[in-house]
Amino acid sequence: MAPISAPRPAPTLEDVARAAEVSTATVSRCLNTPGKVSDDTRLRVMAAVAALGYAPNFGARAMVSRRTRTIGAVIPTMENAIFARGLQAFQEELRTLGYQLLVASSSYRQDVEEEQIRSLVARGADGLLLIGHDRAPQVTEFLQQRGLPVLVTWAYDPAQTGVSVGFDNRRAMRTLAEKTLDLGHRDIAVITAPLADNDRARARVDGIRDAIAARGLSIEGLRLIETDYGITTGGDAFAALMQTSPRPTVVMCGNDVLAVGAVKRARALGLSVPGDVSITGFDDIDIASVVEPALTTVHVPHRAMGAAAARCLIRMIEENGAVAPQELDAHVTWRDSLGRPPR
Amino acid sequence: MAPISAPRPAPTLEDVARAAEVSTATVSRCLNTPGKVSDDTRLRVMAAVAALGYAPNFGARAMVSRRTRTIGAVIPTMENAIFARGLQAFQEELRTLGYQLLVASSSYRQDVEEEQIRSLVARGADGLLLIGHDRAPQVTEFLQQRGLPVLVTWAYDPAQTGVSVGFDNRRAMRTLAEKTLDLGHRDIAVITAPLADNDRARARVDGIRDAIAARGLSIEGLRLIETDYGITTGGDAFAALMQTSPRPTVVMCGNDVLAVGAVKRARALGLSVPGDVSITGFDDIDIASVVEPALTTVHVPHRAMGAAAARCLIRMIEENGAVAPQELDAHVTWRDSLGRPPR
Repeated sequence: MAPISAPRPAPTLEDVARAAEVSTATVSRCLNTPGKVSDDTRLRVMAAVAALGYAPNFGARAMVSRRTRTIGAVIPTMENAIFARGLQAFQEELRTLGYQLLVASSSYRQDVEEEQIRSLVARGADGLLLIGHDRAPQVTEFLQQRGLPVLVTWAYDPAQTGVSVGFDNRRAMRTLAEKTLDLGHRDIAVITAPLADNDRARARVDGIRDAIAARGLSIEGLRLIETDYGITTGGDAFAALMQTSPRPTVVMCGNDVLAVGAVKRARALGLSVPGDVSITGFDDIDIASVVEPALTTVHVPHRAMGAAAARCLIRMIEENGAVAPQELDAHVTWRDSLGRPPR
Repeated sequence: MAPISAPRPAPTLEDVARAAEVSTATVSRCLNTPGKVSDDTRLRVMAAVAALGYAPNFGARAMVSRRTRTIGAVIPTMENAIFARGLQAFQEELRTLGYQLLVASSSYRQDVEEEQIRSLVARGADGLLLIGHDRAPQVTEFLQQRGLPVLVTWAYDPAQTGVSVGFDNRRAMRTLAEKTLDLGHRDIAVITAPLADNDRARARVDGIRDAIAARGLSIEGLRLIETDYGITTGGDAFAALMQTSPRPTVVMCGNDVLAVGAVKRARALGLSVPGDVSITGFDDIDIASVVEPALTTVHVPHRAMGAAAARCLIRMIEENGAVAPQELDAHVTWRDSLGRPPR
């Protein structure tokens, strides 16, 4: 059995300098004006920073109080309202608990997320909210070394370590895919966000594959386009899929924004939805019920999830105890964009 | 002539304790665990904090470097995608300039905005981005005392002090109102966000009044409903306006979200848009072109504004010099929701 290790003291600037065999002034330069340091030195220093889990915490977090009553959140994007409602609820609940929220966005890039996490830790965040489970091992190690409470949301996957408050992306999308199969669809196409570094997007696609395989059908023919979230990109992907043969009878989108782009493009191409082709979304953000036909989609309980995440994270911080992961229900919302296949 | 005052040194915890006639430990408690301090003491301490412009800056901002390369932004809400696109562009431009962004949201409340500003300053922000000009005098004083570069955006009003990168809300809405008058509308109603503490909302309503008055028409009959931003609230306000007599022939909304709510409710009520009633928006966010009929609205150059704001704020920080306000163009985008009045 591995020995239980005592929490290490936070590494200092001096520790980093020693490990990288440079002066503390050089470490400071690397952290503050990296452009003024040679690549070679910077790489050596940043390797030491990463290895030791160092974050400049501006010393005085403990000067007044151990706690800053500030929570950090890193979300993939501020655009598209995907994370907006849940985050607003998270913040409102934090406020009633006496905490403030600072948000950073990573543009769906792991390297940027890592920067943002280190920055929020450096600014004295008492805890972090992160989206999904995918991140580089050194980030997870850094957070473990710092002993900082971290809560993952927008995903619930009991196979992952760490605490999450979220929903089962894979099962939710599988349920929706089963409904399309029940209606008789066999030529299914998928438009998804890029799958790399995005466990939620991968889980949703896996859910579709699960449903197909469970019926004993082949998943080989599943056409899939990866594209950035956006109305225009969703429309372009849809147009490309309509050129393939046999033409899909349903296009399942990983997100409402992509699905709205698909619906609008379908109409521009003179295709009736769902008469000629069905389209489904995921999230149930406002835009899903504004577009015509309104989207059949997976309803994510954004506000409930944000509020539950706030309560859970604060419990982790204040009671310093074990907190159980919490699964919320994401269910199919039936509207008008999914029907029977043509003919 | 008033003497030009030298920048004051930042007030310390001790200064606050002296001014409030309490111990430094009591000041710390007020800042960190306000629930554990009597109301009377807390009010006295917070008055001293406000009077002196004190912010706990965790001492060591200057320990490693004067700059943290972090910018703070306080926006009214994360929901509804109103600020999302501009903020995302702001962040992307900041990144190319070597800065990170931390965002807080105020729920359209001045007291919350003040808390968020103090928190971002305490976390060592090099500069702040704020939305609009409305805020309490003590906040403006606090920021001036700290000598922190502050840029206002989403509004351009040369009558205001301080630097802004934005557009003229009043003139843009006036232009749209003139078009409705040109089409023959005389029974105009307005749905707006609450006007208190929101200079952008007030400016848009003033723009409508300007257009009406410039034609020598009476602005007395202008019906106006203030409601929180939302699709449902917009719909409810629209339904209420349709009960008034004479029924408005056009409903001008202060925001696309309200306008989308109005369009959806009109259709639910069996009213044709624009056949029976015209509806206009403001912002030109995605949802404006997704709803049917698509909204005639004011196009705000969100991405250009966000990027310009980033460049301007960093120039203020790095060159420490005078920066001119910058006005961007907001123009009417014609779609289908505005037509001639019925009959």
